Amino acid sequence: MTQPTTPRSVAAPRSVAAIVLAAGKGTRMKSDTHKVLHPVAGRPMLLHLLAAVGELAPAGVVVVTGAGRDQVGAAVAPFGIATALQAEQLGTGHAVRQAEGALADFDGDVLILYGDVPLVTAATMQRMLDRLRAADAPAAVVLGFRPDDPGAYGRVIADAEGGIVRMVEYKDASDADRAETLCNSGLMAVRAADLWPLLARVGNDNAAGEYYLPDIVMLAAADGRGSAVIETDAHEVAGVNSRGELAAVEAGWQARRRAAAMRDGATLVAPDTIWFAHDTILGRDVTVEPNVVFGPGVTVADGATIHAFSHLERATVGAGAEVGPYARLRPGSVLGVNAKVGNFVEVKNAVLGDGAKASHLTYLGDADIGPGANIGAGTITCNYDGFLKYRTTIGAGAFVGSNSALVAPVAIGAGAIVAAGSVITRDVEPDALALARGRQESRSGWAARFRALMQAKKAAR
Amino acid sequence: MTQPTTPRSVAAPRSVAAIVLAAGKGTRMKSDTHKVLHPVAGRPMLLHLLAAVGELAPAGVVVVTGAGRDQVGAAVAPFGIATALQAEQLGTGHAVRQAEGALADFDGDVLILYGDVPLVTAATMQRMLDRLRAADAPAAVVLGFRPDDPGAYGRVIADAEGGIVRMVEYKDASDADRAETLCNSGLMAVRAADLWPLLARVGNDNAAGEYYLPDIVMLAAADGRGSAVIETDAHEVAGVNSRGELAAVEAGWQARRRAAAMRDGATLVAPDTIWFAHDTILGRDVTVEPNVVFGPGVTVADGATIHAFSHLERATVGAGAEVGPYARLRPGSVLGVNAKVGNFVEVKNAVLGDGAKASHLTYLGDADIGPGANIGAGTITCNYDGFLKYRTTIGAGAFVGSNSALVAPVAIGAGAIVAAGSVITRDVEPDALALARGRQESRSGWAARFRALMQAKKAAR
Amino acid sequence: MTQPTTPRSVAAPRSVAAIVLAAGKGTRMKSDTHKVLHPVAGRPMLLHLLAAVGELAPAGVVVVTGAGRDQVGAAVAPFGIATALQAEQLGTGHAVRQAEGALADFDGDVLILYGDVPLVTAATMQRMLDRLRAADAPAAVVLGFRPDDPGAYGRVIADAEGGIVRMVEYKDASDADRAETLCNSGLMAVRAADLWPLLARVGNDNAAGEYYLPDIVMLAAADGRGSAVIETDAHEVAGVNSRGELAAVEAGWQARRRAAAMRDGATLVAPDTIWFAHDTILGRDVTVEPNVVFGPGVTVADGATIHAFSHLERATVGAGAEVGPYARLRPGSVLGVNAKVGNFVEVKNAVLGDGAKASHLTYLGDADIGPGANIGAGTITCNYDGFLKYRTTIGAGAFVGSNSALVAPVAIGAGAIVAAGSVITRDVEPDALALARGRQESRSGWAARFRALMQAKKAAR
Repeated sequence: MTQPTTPRSVAAPRSVAAIVLAAGKGTRMKSDTHKVLHPVAGRPMLLHLLAAVGELAPAGVVVVTGAGRDQVGAAVAPFGIATALQAEQLGTGHAVRQAEGALADFDGDVLILYGDVPLVTAATMQRMLDRLRAADAPAAVVLGFRPDDPGAYGRVIADAEGGIVRMVEYKDASDADRAETLCNSGLMAVRAADLWPLLARVGNDNAAGEYYLPDIVMLAAADGRGSAVIETDAHEVAGVNSRGELAAVEAGWQARRRAAAMRDGATLVAPDTIWFAHDTILGRDVTVEPNVVFGPGVTVADGATIHAFSHLERATVGAGAEVGPYARLRPGSVLGVNAKVGNFVEVKNAVLGDGAKASHLTYLGDADIGPGANIGAGTITCNYDGFLKYRTTIGAGAFVGSNSALVAPVAIGAGAIVAAGSVITRDVEPDALALARGRQESRSGWAARFRALMQAKKAAR
Repeated sequence: MTQPTTPRSVAAPRSVAAIVLAAGKGTRMKSDTHKVLHPVAGRPMLLHLLAAVGELAPAGVVVVTGAGRDQVGAAVAPFGIATALQAEQLGTGHAVRQAEGALADFDGDVLILYGDVPLVTAATMQRMLDRLRAADAPAAVVLGFRPDDPGAYGRVIADAEGGIVRMVEYKDASDADRAETLCNSGLMAVRAADLWPLLARVGNDNAAGEYYLPDIVMLAAADGRGSAVIETDAHEVAGVNSRGELAAVEAGWQARRRAAAMRDGATLVAPDTIWFAHDTILGRDVTVEPNVVFGPGVTVADGATIHAFSHLERATVGAGAEVGPYARLRPGSVLGVNAKVGNFVEVKNAVLGDGAKASHLTYLGDADIGPGANIGAGTITCNYDGFLKYRTTIGAGAFVGSNSALVAPVAIGAGAIVAAGSVITRDVEPDALALARGRQESRSGWAARFRALMQAKKAAR
Repeated sequence: MTQPTTPRSVAAPRSVAAIVLAAGKGTRMKSDTHKVLHPVAGRPMLLHLLAAVGELAPAGVVVVTGAGRDQVGAAVAPFGIATALQAEQLGTGHAVRQAEGALADFDGDVLILYGDVPLVTAATMQRMLDRLRAADAPAAVVLGFRPDDPGAYGRVIADAEGGIVRMVEYKDASDADRAETLCNSGLMAVRAADLWPLLARVGNDNAAGEYYLPDIVMLAAADGRGSAVIETDAHEVAGVNSRGELAAVEAGWQARRRAAAMRDGATLVAPDTIWFAHDTILGRDVTVEPNVVFGPGVTVADGATIHAFSHLERATVGAGAEVGPYARLRPGSVLGVNAKVGNFVEVKNAVLGDGAKASHLTYLGDADIGPGANIGAGTITCNYDGFLKYRTTIGAGAFVGSNSALVAPVAIGAGAIVAAGSVITRDVEPDALALARGRQESRSGWAARFRALMQAKKAAR
């Protein structure tokens, strides 16, 4: 997927801008984090949406904020995206109007999106724009969907060609209206030249005293301008108002991603137990065993195996490499071809060359490990002194004996051997043996005497 | 949830006693453990029920035992709860009668419950009692439910107000009866003054030769006394006769608990992979990643994150703290505010002060770790000598270098540093550096010669 | 389950041979591994089928190969099973004919099976043979099934006794045919004496230009010979054409296996999170906590507990033993009665005697550990020098202190104690204490000075 990008100015037949409504408080989330910043597939909802918008090369993007605007502003600032403040919550029509100033010079097509409806694709947005640009030039294009249970959604009453006859809120709907299954997602596409004049005419003469965006459809109709609805799958416009809905959107996304991974040639032994991030890349003939979590930024090359209970984040796994079970690859982990990271091994900001192995109970942090090197069980790179981090370098074909501590900065030469249980504080030359451990002593019968003593002590209690 | 408690003598408008039937062998469980002692959400089924009963402050509780009575008696003895023996399995009516002696002096309302129907809430029990105490004074109150598939359950034929017309076993039911969807859970509330005389009249003139408890409803009716049914959700009265049903009850409990956690403001990235215990407490804005197991006795404060693959039991996690991935908190683990326990770290009977960190591959057992202390990767507290356990104390801001062994009893002073790879057997004074490791030696070319030798050896085979 | 075996020549009333079609490329798998070699429950699909066939003591088995024939041939070669090459993909009838040469001398009953329909049981195959051998001597026996959604499967139109009236491909089926729910699995049983002559008459005058195996039913009918259909459950004949279907077959298999485990007296706290292999054996009153993966070759004796997040493969767990959480038992692990392997412990090719314990952060490879021995946290057996592997022996009741490295080959005598943090390179005599570690030194105030220095350094940046 595309990362959110700074909108580019592209000469298009008719340019596009997006208004993303993100002012709602999200009270039902019971969270100090703004609703639209809660993540789905490891990426905040709002950024999913902005990434999709980015694919359309928009001339402008405005995020309408309200409660929690500092959080939202900080999240979009790195992408150079403008925000507009909706100080009071007076309805969707009112919210959209807050973007008018920021788009004053824009005369193309406007997409109206919702930060809590995060999974709308660029392809669907493009379909909305294409419909808006069709020969019959509808005043507005509404994105509709048919949920399993239409429940209390507002209905779109349309003719067979998708011409909108009426839009009705559920509470105002007749029984006949309620029997309709096409529902209003709230998403719209409207020409800027139509949007602002229509919005200016929207009133708030209703029970809630709010300005409703969908009213522009009826206002245009009164002017003799028709509007159109196009449809998309219900899951694409699923909204998030609670953590339960957040989990449901996540689950739906994961289910589709797993199916896609299998279609593309990965074996997921237990698909329901694999959790992908929005940008996970798996090669062909990759096998993923049960219970694997992919954080953001992971690429796994062809033929690699991710064993059970592994956790990867911002890591690259080479072709034919093996990870886990119980391996944790943290950011900056790069595994070469046929490299192996085994059980209870943590790798962070470290590169393992082709065929290098760290099979058990090891921490490799801030390290460069040459091709074919073998890191024994229980090896620890001591990369931190409480203030700074230092790098460990291990040469090609080196053998680090088990339970060694490598105190960085330190270099183990190519082909060198570190004896088991050593604490290495100085560089080891290539092909040398390094030892740093105590001499073994023995005290005959000591254990038997100790046992007798302790048993007596216990008995005396 | 409330722990099972010794029943208190409370002066109530009319007091309550509970009879819990737990004599059934549970043959289909194929277990040496009595059926009612198998756990749901980390607590034996019987104790779930007794905890709910405890909320009603009962004047008496009698558990009717049969097969496996020693196990059941031992389980309830700590709560001062009486048992009555049903030596022969002669039906539910017979089982309830065994409690008559223990309740001889009791003249309030009796709840009849089942040890293998563990999830009935105190609120539902109270509704049963309220109905029994209503103005029309029914002879008995039956708890009914409407399962998705009524199948072979006995049916309750009732009028619109819940007055019981008839109760029929499935095998005796007509087609019309079977079309009824209200089923009999077996749970009842009856005044003691009614219960014992009615039970004395129940006969065993049926195919199985058993005394059936529900017969008291028809006997009361013959006396002109009506009985009433009240309803509850089917999942609340789900019974357990096999390990498959045990797993189903567990799954249902977990699903409801997960939904409640999300409603209360926790993010569960993958709710279906989180396993709660009966008494888990989560704060607001707690995030729980996939695949986390909560054993009993865990409290997680606001804003803490439990990363994937973590396992917690009788542990307290401070606000903003981070646990895992792959962290195991065993009983007696207490993490301060913003403390961190990382991957492949086990904590047992140890307190980590605010901001203290143990990020990798560490065992902290029987330890007190001061605020801001940093425990390096691979650190082991050697707390056991084969006979006794000893305590390790680490002062505020101390830095324990990686791969160190701390041989308890031992104290590391505040601000002290332990060099990586040290074996510390004596106390370290505050702000001192302690080292205990071998001196590094090097043998040039040794590794190259060893390799040549071993390759020759392999070739010679 | 039975392992695939070399077919035995057994004098049977009428002998049986099997033809397994495995020529299809499996393009939709998008894999370099042949479709029939992808595993279900840890065993390649084809070997599931051959194991079931093996239970019938067949006189001959022929696997018909095409694309990827080298892979398939290599997989069946260890079992002495013949292959026949179908060089061109000209339909199922053509594929079966390729086996004629290999079965030239065989005149018994032939089962026609599919390598990508892996879970057909020996019992079902036997039912097919029994039907073929019944008094009415049908020309062919077809295995039918009734899927939830018959979709585009070919239909079997049969009379009430299972006599086949017609077999129709979905695309040639009338609406009336399509309303039939009995579908053709493709599996057949036919006498060799009937099969080859009938096949020789099958033509390819159809849209695809292929020779269809089911045509033999209609050809026999034209000769006045009836054929019969018998039914089985849809899941037994589920086929695999994509990784999605592979995952579905795996999931179905796991669901049935979990249910069976619970019926047999194991507690699975969260059944959906337990993954069995085809040959896992669990005793009575075994408890398996959430998230456990069983690879092939695991036996768990009565009363053992497998805690959460454990991974076992070719391992034996003794009665009452405890494994995990986060334990990995690799091939050759044998745990005695009441032995314990705890968190972050890896065991490989090692035997732990009764009551022996390795509770934390340990690697035991190529080791023999006596009864009652206690292996401290962080112990590593250094079993590999980069070329060869060596064995560690630990006597009964020995105590290995935490964070020790045992450099194999080495023996720790019975009752001996190894001091924490030791690197043991020479044998330790029974009842002795062995130490091998540096002497502790202390430098007063060093840490305070270091801190001041580093803070100044940071401030100067």
